[in-house]
Amino acid sequence: MVARAMLNFGLTDLAIVNPRDGWPNPQAIATASGAIDLLDKARVYKTTREAIADLHYVFATTARERDMSKQVFTPHAAATKIHELSAQNIQTGILFGAERTGLENDDIAASHAIITYPTNPDFSSLNLAQAVLLMSYEMAQLQSQIPDIHLQTGKSEIATKESVDNFLERLFEKLEDKNFFKSADMRPSIERNIETLFLRGELTEQEVSTLHGIIAALDKNN
Amino acid sequence: MVARAMLNFGLTDLAIVNPRDGWPNPQAIATASGAIDLLDKARVYKTTREAIADLHYVFATTARERDMSKQVFTPHAAATKIHELSAQNIQTGILFGAERTGLENDDIAASHAIITYPTNPDFSSLNLAQAVLLMSYEMAQLQSQIPDIHLQTGKSEIATKESVDNFLERLFEKLEDKNFFKSADMRPSIERNIETLFLRGELTEQEVSTLHGIIAALDKNN
Repeated sequence: MVARAMLNFGLTDLAIVNPRDGWPNPQAIATASGAIDLLDKARVYKTTREAIADLHYVFATTARERDMSKQVFTPHAAATKIHELSAQNIQTGILFGAERTGLENDDIAASHAIITYPTNPDFSSLNLAQAVLLMSYEMAQLQSQIPDIHLQTGKSEIATKESVDNFLERLFEKLEDKNFFKSADMRPSIERNIETLFLRGELTEQEVSTLHGIIAALDKNN
Repeated sequence: MVARAMLNFGLTDLAIVNPRDGWPNPQAIATASGAIDLLDKARVYKTTREAIADLHYVFATTARERDMSKQVFTPHAAATKIHELSAQNIQTGILFGAERTGLENDDIAASHAIITYPTNPDFSSLNLAQAVLLMSYEMAQLQSQIPDIHLQTGKSEIATKESVDNFLERLFEKLEDKNFFKSADMRPSIERNIETLFLRGELTEQEVSTLHGIIAALDKNN
């Protein structure tokens, strides 16, 4: 599950310390379906210190406060720091503890800083794969080129203002024919309100066509 | 698992549409251990449209592009929007699809906007509880009062500059006695380098005591 969580967000370098059930582990391979490459390439060590020996900066993930003077990062702040260090070719790693017991104090002492998740104090029981998923997600998010908000338009394209204006002109003419505008005085403000309604979201050319079709159909019934 | 993921990050209002195995579901209750309150209070609906009828703004989560013109948000941007709308008493909700099949096109059409996770395009198989965990996490992160980085000092406190200076003064005197400073010319720059080393991180009063103890112990062996 850890291998899958890593691969979901593009992390691939896994080191395993002292695996409880030996290595390779057929059950782990079965559960990792789709992320088996990552397990094949996993490095296995007897001790945490060996696993982190070639790193320059190591984060330890832990839910509880320990009696050690260390900087504590949010996952986002840690991902930002890892990203900045990587850009300077400073090799970083994140330690995750065993299910239930977590990291030992000696592992935390061997780390430069701590990551703590902003969990609900009354219910903070993240499992190992979830903890890995959240850090992997934060790492991916920083590297993502996806804009915060973008318009998915399917097979169509965003309508030009001219297309929208042509539609509005047709709509206003039809409404004039049907005596929708009670008074000439009110007409400009009603037109502005209708234009505002249709410009709230970005109309596509397909949607403008559909609106033309709706006007034609409604007109036919009269 | 969804109930646990929500509660981990403080979300509690769950609506379930057309549950496959009926409701209440003893297996769901067994798996939700610790988050059973949330299942007890869950509202159950026959259709998605009933479930979202009292909301003002609805996000649909989906991995694949659909042929619909909708705004697509990152999880973080969506959490930010939900947070802003909530502050204006605008009720928001997030739709998650069934395991494997995801949301149906009709559910997405009924939503105001889409959330897509920045997953690895070659391996984007988030399960339902993981998708819920990530959005819950983003919501919690926005409301969290925890600073990005803070110093955990255990039972001790950060040392005052005076404490550190007293230690440095003692160290430099001892080093002078042992002829550590080869030349008087070099001494100021060596002292600055040593001070820099000890000021890199925030020393605690406990650590300053330990350093005094180290000097005393090393001196004794001479």
